Amino acid sequence: MADRIEPRTLRGFRDYTPELMLPREAILDKARKVYRSYGFAPIDTPALEYAEVLLGKGGDESDRLVYQFKDHGDRHVALRFDLTVPFARFAAQYIGQLGTPFKRYHMGPVWRGENTGHGRYREFWQCDFDTIGTTSNAADIEVVLVIHDLMRAIGFERFQIRVNNRLVLNGLLESLGLREKAVPLLRSLDKLLKIGPEKVAAEMVEAAGVSPDQAAQVLKLAGLQGSNAEVLDRLEKEFAGNEFAAEGARRLRELIEVTKAVGLPEGEVKLDLSIARGLDYYTGTIYETFLGDLPGIGSVCSGGRYDNLAGLFTKQTLPGVGSSLGLDRLLSAMEELKMLPSVSTPAPVLVVQFVAGRLGDYQRVAGRLRAAGVGVEVFPEAKKLPAQFKYAEQRGFRVALIAGPDELSRSVWNVKDLLRKEEQKGVPETGVVEAVQKVLAGGAS
Amino acid sequence: MADRIEPRTLRGFRDYTPELMLPREAILDKARKVYRSYGFAPIDTPALEYAEVLLGKGGDESDRLVYQFKDHGDRHVALRFDLTVPFARFAAQYIGQLGTPFKRYHMGPVWRGENTGHGRYREFWQCDFDTIGTTSNAADIEVVLVIHDLMRAIGFERFQIRVNNRLVLNGLLESLGLREKAVPLLRSLDKLLKIGPEKVAAEMVEAAGVSPDQAAQVLKLAGLQGSNAEVLDRLEKEFAGNEFAAEGARRLRELIEVTKAVGLPEGEVKLDLSIARGLDYYTGTIYETFLGDLPGIGSVCSGGRYDNLAGLFTKQTLPGVGSSLGLDRLLSAMEELKMLPSVSTPAPVLVVQFVAGRLGDYQRVAGRLRAAGVGVEVFPEAKKLPAQFKYAEQRGFRVALIAGPDELSRSVWNVKDLLRKEEQKGVPETGVVEAVQKVLAGGAS
Repeated sequence: MADRIEPRTLRGFRDYTPELMLPREAILDKARKVYRSYGFAPIDTPALEYAEVLLGKGGDESDRLVYQFKDHGDRHVALRFDLTVPFARFAAQYIGQLGTPFKRYHMGPVWRGENTGHGRYREFWQCDFDTIGTTSNAADIEVVLVIHDLMRAIGFERFQIRVNNRLVLNGLLESLGLREKAVPLLRSLDKLLKIGPEKVAAEMVEAAGVSPDQAAQVLKLAGLQGSNAEVLDRLEKEFAGNEFAAEGARRLRELIEVTKAVGLPEGEVKLDLSIARGLDYYTGTIYETFLGDLPGIGSVCSGGRYDNLAGLFTKQTLPGVGSSLGLDRLLSAMEELKMLPSVSTPAPVLVVQFVAGRLGDYQRVAGRLRAAGVGVEVFPEAKKLPAQFKYAEQRGFRVALIAGPDELSRSVWNVKDLLRKEEQKGVPETGVVEAVQKVLAGGAS
Repeated sequence: MADRIEPRTLRGFRDYTPELMLPREAILDKARKVYRSYGFAPIDTPALEYAEVLLGKGGDESDRLVYQFKDHGDRHVALRFDLTVPFARFAAQYIGQLGTPFKRYHMGPVWRGENTGHGRYREFWQCDFDTIGTTSNAADIEVVLVIHDLMRAIGFERFQIRVNNRLVLNGLLESLGLREKAVPLLRSLDKLLKIGPEKVAAEMVEAAGVSPDQAAQVLKLAGLQGSNAEVLDRLEKEFAGNEFAAEGARRLRELIEVTKAVGLPEGEVKLDLSIARGLDYYTGTIYETFLGDLPGIGSVCSGGRYDNLAGLFTKQTLPGVGSSLGLDRLLSAMEELKMLPSVSTPAPVLVVQFVAGRLGDYQRVAGRLRAAGVGVEVFPEAKKLPAQFKYAEQRGFRVALIAGPDELSRSVWNVKDLLRKEEQKGVPETGVVEAVQKVLAGGAS
C-alpha cells in the first residue's frame, strides 16, 4: 500500500499501553471499591452535551479551552471539561426522582484544549465523589474518612489531609475589614505553597488592592501554627464574636474529634488555615491531601463544600460537599516513588505450549487455575521453549507451567517460579492450583 | 436567577442513573476479570484522534456518521466510532516495543451520529478483546472459551456460541462458481436471522447479481443441518478438493474438539454455516452468541479472525482474532429477562443516625463492616426514623443498623433485616459484622 497513514496521536493526548493501563485500572478499581463502601453510587453522563449546558452563560476565559463544534444536526455541542457541570445538570434533571441526600461518584475522561507540557494532558480522568442535598457536617466529615480509606487502599501509609473552612477564612478577613475582597485574596492565598508568602503578598496588593500591611496580616492569620487543638482554641477565642467564623470553627472541631474517634492516626488530619482552594464556589469545609514522601507534587485529592450545585439549571437549592482524586498526578507520584510494578500482563501464570495438538490439556489446566481466581495465559503457538520463556520474561509472568509428552502421559506438570528460577517437577494435575498459589504467595516453589 | 438553562441531554445520548449504572459496572467488572484471567491486558486510546487516522482514505458512506471538527489548532479531528481502528493505529505504533503475540482488551465509549431509535444510541460502549500477531488456531479456540466464561460470569446458563469459518464459506461459494461474488453474498447471508431466507435470496439476486437458483443453492449449503460431527464430516467429504475449505473445516474440527475436551457443555458451541458476519475484513473463524431465553435480540458477542489488522498504518502484517461484547444489547436483554436487581445503592447496609452528635460511634461501626468488605452508608442527618427508613427502602438497602442512647450506652446495636422485616436486638459491637453477614448471606437475621 503506497499511501500509508502515519500512526500518531494528537498533541496532548496519550495512549495507555498495558504497562501504564494496569496501574490506572488498579487505582480506579480501588477508588470504586472505597466510594461504594460508603454508599456512593456510580453515575455517568455523556461526553458530548449542548454547549449551552456546559458553558453556562459563557464568555469566560476558560471557555476557550473547551472543545466545541456544530454536530450533524447543526447543534452547538461541546465535550465535557469537568464532571462538576454535568453533575449539576444531572442533579437538576433527576433529583426529584432520586431523592436527597444523594451520594454519587463519577469517574471518566474530560477534555480541555490547554497548553500541554508539565505533565498536562488535553484528555485526562477525573474521579469525583459528592454528597448533595444536605448541609450536615456528617457529610463533610465523611469526606475525610473516604480520603483516608482511598489513600490506604491505593497503597500510601504516609499522607496528610489538610482541612480548613471558608467560613473561618471569611471571618479572618472580616476581622481585618477585608471581607469584600475575599475572592481575590483567597485566590492568591491558594498559591502559598507554590510561590511562597512574598509573592502571595505582592499578588494580594496588586490583585486585591490591599495594603502591604493588610496582606501581611492575612498571611499571619492564615499561617497560625500549632496542634489542631491549639489552633481551634485560638480560633474560638479570637473569633467568638463572628457568627460565621464560629460556625466554621465548630464544624472543624467536630471533624477533628470524629475522625479521631473513628481511629484515624494522630497527625493525619491537620487543620491548616492557609488552605484556600482557588475555586470561588466553595463556601465551607475545604480539603487538600499531600503525600508524606512527595509533598511537592501538590494535593492529590481536593474538594470542599458548596452552597448550591445546580443554580444554573434549577430553582431547587442543592448544597453539597465532595472531593476529587487526581488520578494522573497520583500515577506520576507512584511512578516517581517506584510504587508501580513493571509488569505488562494481568495474568501471573503462563502455560507453555510444549506439544502442538495438546491444547485441550493446556487449556484444561489453565481453566482449573482460572476457576481458583488465578489468571493464566496459554501461549498460542508451539514455538521453541526459549522463545516462550523470553516472552514470559518480557511480560513479567511469575510462574510457567510446562508439560511435554512424558508429563502429559503421566498427567503431571512442572511448575517453574520465574522470579526465583526454581522448578518443582512432576506436580500432579490436582495439585497444580496449590503449587502455583504457593509461588504467588511468595513461598518456595 | 431569571435566565436558567434547561437541563437536557442531546438526542441519542443518555445519562446513567445509579439504577442503570450499577448493572453496567457489574458487567464491565466481570468482563474485565474474565479478559484478564486469560492474559488479555488493558489498553486505552484517546477519544479524539486525527480524522485522517480514524477515517483512513475516507469517502465511505459511514464516514458521515463520524463526529468530526476542527480543533483549536485548526487540526481536522474526530471522535472514535469504534475501538478497532484505534487499535490498528495503536498496534502499528507500538507492536515493535510490545512484541507478539499481543493480547489486549479495550472497553470504552464510542460515538456515531446515527439515526436514533430502536435502542440505538449515539454514544455507546464497546468491550473488545483480541489476540494479534499469530495465525495459530489456539487463539481462535480461546475466543470461544472466553465467551463461555464471560456469559457464565454475567449470569447466563443457557446460551449458544455459533461458529463458522470464512474459508469454508468461500469454499462453498467456489464450488458454486460464485467465489468472486463472496462479499455481497455473505453480506446478504448475514441477514438470514433478521429477514429470513426468502428476502435474503431476493437480495442476493439483486445485490450480487446471481440467479434465483444460485441463491437457493447458497442458502441450501449454508443451511446444512446436523450435529457438529455430521456437518464436519459432510464438509470434509464434499470439499476435500478445496484447499481453503478443507483448512477451514480442519480448524473448526479442532475448535469443536478442544472446547469439548476442556469441558464446555454439549450443544453450547454449535457449527452454523449460515453465520456470515457482515464485515468484509473477516477471513477465518467467525463467532456469534445467542441467548437461550432471548435469541431474537441477536448476537450479544460477535467477532472473527482477520488477516491483517493495521495495513493502513504499517507494512508489518498483523493477523489476529477477537470478539466484542455488546454491552448495551446485553443490558437490554437482562432487563427484559428480569435479571437486574432494582437497587440504587452499591452498599447494602444503612446506619441510621438516631442521635445527633454520636457520629463517631456510627462511623466506627460502619468502619468495622467496611473493613470486612461490607459497604455501609451512614445517614448524614439525625432525621426522624421513618424518614430514614423510607430512604432505606427507596434505595434498596438490605440491612439497617440502629442504636439510640440506650444501645449506645451499652455498646450494642439493633440489626434490622429490611427485606424480611425482622430485627435482632442488642447485638454487641464485636458481633455486628457476623450478624450483618448472616442477613446478607440470606440466613435468618
